[in-house]
Amino acid sequence: MSNEKLPSRRENFSDWYNQLVLKSELADYAPVRGCMVVRPYGWTLWENIQRGLDRRFKETGHVNAAFPLFIPMSFLEKEKEHVEGFSPELAVVTIGGGEDLEEPLIVRPTSETIIGYMYSKWIKSYRDLPVLINQWGNVVRWEMRTKLFLRTLEFYWQEGHTAHATEQEAREETLQMLNVYADFAVNDAAVPVVPGMKSEREKFAGAVNSYTIEAMMGDTRALQAGTSHFLGQNFARAFNIQYLDWNNELQHVWTTSWGLSTRFIGAIIMTHGDDNGLILPPKLAPIQVVLVPIYKSDDDKSKVLETVERIRKELHEYRVHVDSREEVTPGYKYNDWEMRGVPLRIEIGPRDIENNSVVFARRDIIGKQGKSLLSQDHIADQVNEALNTIQKSMYTRALGFRKANTKDPKTYDGFIQVVKNGWAYSWWCERDECELRVKEDTKATTRCIPIDQPGEEGLCIVCNKPAKNRVYFARAY
Amino acid sequence: MSNEKLPSRRENFSDWYNQLVLKSELADYAPVRGCMVVRPYGWTLWENIQRGLDRRFKETGHVNAAFPLFIPMSFLEKEKEHVEGFSPELAVVTIGGGEDLEEPLIVRPTSETIIGYMYSKWIKSYRDLPVLINQWGNVVRWEMRTKLFLRTLEFYWQEGHTAHATEQEAREETLQMLNVYADFAVNDAAVPVVPGMKSEREKFAGAVNSYTIEAMMGDTRALQAGTSHFLGQNFARAFNIQYLDWNNELQHVWTTSWGLSTRFIGAIIMTHGDDNGLILPPKLAPIQVVLVPIYKSDDDKSKVLETVERIRKELHEYRVHVDSREEVTPGYKYNDWEMRGVPLRIEIGPRDIENNSVVFARRDIIGKQGKSLLSQDHIADQVNEALNTIQKSMYTRALGFRKANTKDPKTYDGFIQVVKNGWAYSWWCERDECELRVKEDTKATTRCIPIDQPGEEGLCIVCNKPAKNRVYFARAY
Repeated sequence: MSNEKLPSRRENFSDWYNQLVLKSELADYAPVRGCMVVRPYGWTLWENIQRGLDRRFKETGHVNAAFPLFIPMSFLEKEKEHVEGFSPELAVVTIGGGEDLEEPLIVRPTSETIIGYMYSKWIKSYRDLPVLINQWGNVVRWEMRTKLFLRTLEFYWQEGHTAHATEQEAREETLQMLNVYADFAVNDAAVPVVPGMKSEREKFAGAVNSYTIEAMMGDTRALQAGTSHFLGQNFARAFNIQYLDWNNELQHVWTTSWGLSTRFIGAIIMTHGDDNGLILPPKLAPIQVVLVPIYKSDDDKSKVLETVERIRKELHEYRVHVDSREEVTPGYKYNDWEMRGVPLRIEIGPRDIENNSVVFARRDIIGKQGKSLLSQDHIADQVNEALNTIQKSMYTRALGFRKANTKDPKTYDGFIQVVKNGWAYSWWCERDECELRVKEDTKATTRCIPIDQPGEEGLCIVCNKPAKNRVYFARAY
Repeated sequence: MSNEKLPSRRENFSDWYNQLVLKSELADYAPVRGCMVVRPYGWTLWENIQRGLDRRFKETGHVNAAFPLFIPMSFLEKEKEHVEGFSPELAVVTIGGGEDLEEPLIVRPTSETIIGYMYSKWIKSYRDLPVLINQWGNVVRWEMRTKLFLRTLEFYWQEGHTAHATEQEAREETLQMLNVYADFAVNDAAVPVVPGMKSEREKFAGAVNSYTIEAMMGDTRALQAGTSHFLGQNFARAFNIQYLDWNNELQHVWTTSWGLSTRFIGAIIMTHGDDNGLILPPKLAPIQVVLVPIYKSDDDKSKVLETVERIRKELHEYRVHVDSREEVTPGYKYNDWEMRGVPLRIEIGPRDIENNSVVFARRDIIGKQGKSLLSQDHIADQVNEALNTIQKSMYTRALGFRKANTKDPKTYDGFIQVVKNGWAYSWWCERDECELRVKEDTKATTRCIPIDQPGEEGLCIVCNKPAKNRVYFARAY
């Protein structure tokens, strides 16, 4: 770790982010262009994200499986929009075992096609439906401009792929998984999100409808933090996924896919972090509590370490780390663990031994206001309460930030100003033309058409024509 | 699932295996040569294997991380033996984002090189050591002859990579992880294994010493079920991984690597399975207990289902499945769950409702001997006991099988007969010449030089010259 200062988040958000990822040891640059190494601290965070999601997937009836990394090029070509969307981004294996391959293999950028092929093999009758499979794995998209976690050539994610007998069931699944993502983001990651539908221009290549959870980062830019797609019968037709229905007639299935990736780690960093480093939500933090013993004399040392060890044992239900390093000062340790975003620090010194006390220091409130002197009694209960408080207040703060930076401009000129440094919540006529004009004028795009709508009509912020939906416009990652 | 019979295990072990993998829905062939799809039932088994290993890795101080899928070709070339060993098996990406790459990228066959590169960046001082990192992921080796789980182009595994200040510490780590594998195999998978060292010919490309756990499959062939390598300073020199020692002098680190893969699923199938299907060890089985309700009248049905539901709730600590299918008979269900190797089946019918009884049917003992009529009281305790008994007796049976098929031939002619259909436990002079002769004469190889040795000396079974160690010879997967 490093005790060197970060660049100012306010002055240079991008530098702040890049250096924070490195200094907190979440990830590092790999010696392959655009690839990353997810270091143990970052991977443990990802494991905690996986656990939170996987539990929700299984509660909603899904199971995990693994499909091949390699996909025959011809598979991708079976769905027209899909191949157009992904062709520019492919990594292609042309040599295997020392010989040129007859048909090149692509490294999966997403697995609709190969999973579609397998589903056509497995699904015969309505009794085989629904198929509710998720896959945890790695995918590759040959991106030109990369950034750790946010956009890397290889990234880690889960991709759910489901097949249903009816359109309605597939649509319900799509929205159910969108809600699972929103629930996870809000309750586990303390990241406020807007669930909504993507515009035609912004949807997934091959989908009928794409849904997203959109989050506001600390520089007010938007980040698509998870997506759920209703694929209609597009892939069922391309891969001939058919079943015999209740009347013994052959029907195409209806499919969905949904994914959340290591990009979400970027969302956590950029939603919560500050100039001192990461601030990790207690529910996902690799280390929830760090215990820092403070002493000078050998006599104090043994007493303090004894108490620290007793407290560590009492906190066995939490992810606790004892920083017993000898070669650095307590102040140095505080900086280290602030950089790493540990939600709660407990300081224990000789005076605490005398007074049966401890000092709690909250990561989300730096300085005196974040500190409290507490009794050593019922320490587990107190830690539980502190972590809950931190979790909640992180969410409240992030939601407050989003609200403060979301505006309802009255004119297109006002709109142009708003999206320079925030989100505009505006009526939109849903025509390509207006969406494109916004993008050209401001670099902002439609982020989503929120599921929750005011239930009235308005006038498009661009063209003043009638509009049915209010949408969010913002510059995005 | 399928109620069709398997080929006879005794008559055609290979067909039996291939069809069992498909019929039990553990895996399927992918539309890419040599690749597999691990289906939900197989992946859940792998998740349980992962859990058993990951717990042991973390208890021994390891953390997980993720390194890139792609490795620059030049990296592999830095370690002479390593590149020779892996070059024939590589998948090579030559096109990225529509353009020819300046330097081709290989899809990792194993990650010593790219992890070595990162370690050289991260490790500066003795304070940074040891580094104890594991990675769960996929790797690719371009194999010519493939078989589901046992040898596929892409497979799933974990690879541990550690760096140490001293040779002794690295050697201890190598053996510690060998023991972790052996402990897992024996206690979780009920697979008896011999831990030992590989011969020079059989060791990992780039290792100083390779260790293995060797298991006997149901056809008496050997399978290398996990490996742990002491890499000396080979990769440290190739990648310049150096640290400042306690005297402020620059030293190369000592490294290890160790891996266990989805091949282990093949070991479980071939150790325990029978002509009725899989027999899965209770500790790893995706479903530990299947409840089969039996009824004819509607009146019986509601009573039986009520009891089944109550019992399901009482068994909430176990992985339980209720087979409530209406369209098939109980007998059909029995066959299904026997094919899938569920360790314990509980049958509940109208008479059981009257008598407060249930029937337990053990998967490892088919027929009447495996059935017992028990009370519904304390059902969770009884399930616990039954699962423990099954776990133990599976191990005992497998160990007995290995012992019965391991011989100590007195002459080389006798040896040739023994390795046709079993293991030979024989003295070997450790010379290449004798090892090669055995291979040419019998197709058998040295499987390992066991850690436990008789502590005397003998005469090589091939050349009659003095030999220090007894080793296992066998034909192997």
